[in-house]
Amino acid sequence: MSQPDAAAAAIVEIDGSRLIDRLRRLAAIGARPDGGLNRQAFTPEEGEARRLVANWARDIGMTAETDAIGNLYLRYVPDGTDGQAPVLGGSHLDTQPAGGWLDGAYGVIAALEAVQAIAEQGVPLARPLEVVAWVNEEGSRFQPGVMGSAWFAGHFDLARAPQIEGSDGEALDHAIVGYKAATPDIEERETPFPIAGLIEAHIEQGPILEREGLKVGVVEGVQGIRWFRVEVLGEAAHAGTTPLGARRDAVLAATRLVQALSAAMADPADVLRFTVGRFVVSPGSPNTVADKVTFTIDMRHPDPHELDKGEATIREICAGQAAPCTAEVTVTETLSPVAFDERVVAAVAGAAEALGIAARRMASGAGHDAANIARVAPAGMIFVPCHGGVSHHPAENADEADLIAGAHVVATAMARLAAR
Amino acid sequence: MSQPDAAAAAIVEIDGSRLIDRLRRLAAIGARPDGGLNRQAFTPEEGEARRLVANWARDIGMTAETDAIGNLYLRYVPDGTDGQAPVLGGSHLDTQPAGGWLDGAYGVIAALEAVQAIAEQGVPLARPLEVVAWVNEEGSRFQPGVMGSAWFAGHFDLARAPQIEGSDGEALDHAIVGYKAATPDIEERETPFPIAGLIEAHIEQGPILEREGLKVGVVEGVQGIRWFRVEVLGEAAHAGTTPLGARRDAVLAATRLVQALSAAMADPADVLRFTVGRFVVSPGSPNTVADKVTFTIDMRHPDPHELDKGEATIREICAGQAAPCTAEVTVTETLSPVAFDERVVAAVAGAAEALGIAARRMASGAGHDAANIARVAPAGMIFVPCHGGVSHHPAENADEADLIAGAHVVATAMARLAAR
Repeated sequence: MSQPDAAAAAIVEIDGSRLIDRLRRLAAIGARPDGGLNRQAFTPEEGEARRLVANWARDIGMTAETDAIGNLYLRYVPDGTDGQAPVLGGSHLDTQPAGGWLDGAYGVIAALEAVQAIAEQGVPLARPLEVVAWVNEEGSRFQPGVMGSAWFAGHFDLARAPQIEGSDGEALDHAIVGYKAATPDIEERETPFPIAGLIEAHIEQGPILEREGLKVGVVEGVQGIRWFRVEVLGEAAHAGTTPLGARRDAVLAATRLVQALSAAMADPADVLRFTVGRFVVSPGSPNTVADKVTFTIDMRHPDPHELDKGEATIREICAGQAAPCTAEVTVTETLSPVAFDERVVAAVAGAAEALGIAARRMASGAGHDAANIARVAPAGMIFVPCHGGVSHHPAENADEADLIAGAHVVATAMARLAAR
Repeated sequence: MSQPDAAAAAIVEIDGSRLIDRLRRLAAIGARPDGGLNRQAFTPEEGEARRLVANWARDIGMTAETDAIGNLYLRYVPDGTDGQAPVLGGSHLDTQPAGGWLDGAYGVIAALEAVQAIAEQGVPLARPLEVVAWVNEEGSRFQPGVMGSAWFAGHFDLARAPQIEGSDGEALDHAIVGYKAATPDIEERETPFPIAGLIEAHIEQGPILEREGLKVGVVEGVQGIRWFRVEVLGEAAHAGTTPLGARRDAVLAATRLVQALSAAMADPADVLRFTVGRFVVSPGSPNTVADKVTFTIDMRHPDPHELDKGEATIREICAGQAAPCTAEVTVTETLSPVAFDERVVAAVAGAAEALGIAARRMASGAGHDAANIARVAPAGMIFVPCHGGVSHHPAENADEADLIAGAHVVATAMARLAAR
């Protein structure tokens, strides 16, 4: 075991120009006239992307496998590692209908570059490496999203597929069959299988790294989400004849609550997310004092105790500061936070440090495939900065140097995780 | 002139039970199952109400006349007063589609009772008295509202009638012809004619008199109205990934503005009216930081200088407190305040005082026919309390004693105005 042990401190640098070249070639599949991508799940475009990536992998001696739902696994099995649980890197190949060239694709191509660099450099490993592309992460054509990884983790039942209709009317089971039939040379594989570790690289989809001038985010987990609906009830009245003191104005009460909540949710650590994105007034007539406002709260934090504290604050403020109106608070959705495996997080952080790449630990505000896999195996993520935090948009972009730096970290962290 | 001079200090009490009885009988025309009224302008129901009221007037020796638009004038011309400009009392007979039994009807029936009491008591007069019912005050079937009085005052051009389509598709000119043809015994009259004074009695449609335990409001004028649209522009962002400090959240900025405006508009004198009745968020998605909020402001005050000051405050707050968003303020409607003629206001106040009826001076928050007539003749209004300020609703109601007290004031004030 002396050789793999050496890999535990390995530093692996990938071929940056090949990484960017492959990303550009992949971005040609499903390209939109506006520079964005439309490569939705289980479409011929996603199938073509799958074939392209599988062929790149085969060219360097990897094998391509799939499973019942169509996830793609590109396997690199060094001598003496067969039978060991693999270390995976990857993300997804599908995009939003008006998406960008990096969301998903970057994680897959960075992992492919990582495996190729490790193989080319002969880094000794104790475990196989795999590049994975989970199907239907975006959930734009078929709901729910993060479907391939949820199914792998046992949270999505494929028996539902005939009842799930796509946005274009095709049933999910039919779409999967067609998708897989287009690449008959990709072998079937039994799932689930043990995973020793998984690393998903992704653009941040937020502004933090860019703002702080950092190259890499070491993602410690995915924030928990709690959604609320607040219904503020007042009394309708004539705007011209009703004195201000005699009113129970739902707009005044609801705007006061939003301001008080916003002040109470201020977080010096800048981790908590608090958003009022919907605010609907009834009757909504300029000359009528409103009798009802319904607004939403989207609260996110990686720590479930902080979410509980936030909920208590929301309930206290809405109960105490709505007078002369009343406010009723209802929780409409709850997603528990995901904490990534500390071994994977440490491997990513250690890789960035060994490479001298400026990084910070952070939480993911959005859901990702890695959060599903984290429920059944050690998993983690690497974020790279993107321009202005923009994603799910044709303008989605990132500096090539940052994409390359992130892939160095993926390669080094995968090599280190596969060392034992 | 000694006899009419005596009327300048007259006290006239009307027949309260006859007043209430007539109001109840009138309320049977267009009655809704829910207790409300649907007697819209130029409908057969309004025509039936017109005929009933005209017949009551003829029974006591008055004559019924109409004009090109269909306004109804019921004339009482004591000997020696023919040729003098009359004193008018009245309001309108049409209602909202789901209106109440007092809005409009009370002013007409109170004036009819006033004239009948003056005639029965032989109060000496220098001028004729008339009961008027202006057409289409509500503006629910045909826009604009307060049409009959606006036309009388030269602010509505009847040549537009063929182009004005009712909510049921009938053209206004056709509706007027049919309405007038249903009462061919009502004679045509030349307009406009000089008016010595006009008093419109009306339920307050607000809560002030009820709250203060007063029987009568001496209306000094109709508030000016200024409407604004405030457009707050921020930047859309992901609710999960964008730190609070990096946001330009239009909902936070707009709610802050509404709170600041509301605080700045506090009026110790309780005269200013300030209402944000519409507040529309874009894109309005719970997990997206809003990039745009558009809200309305309805500001009312009887003093145009106060409206100017209020507008300056609105502009200052929106310019200074929207950051990091921007806010653009647009005036969307302006109605100048109307100050009623001090002779009429004094006659109403003096009548209430002479009758020992508790009264206060106040402004009208809503528009009325009297505000149109005030532009061409001395005019004023009397308010009586209504239950909970409710109007334009089947639940509209008032205490019978208050309706009677108000009619005493109408009768006394009309007699005094007609004394010279």
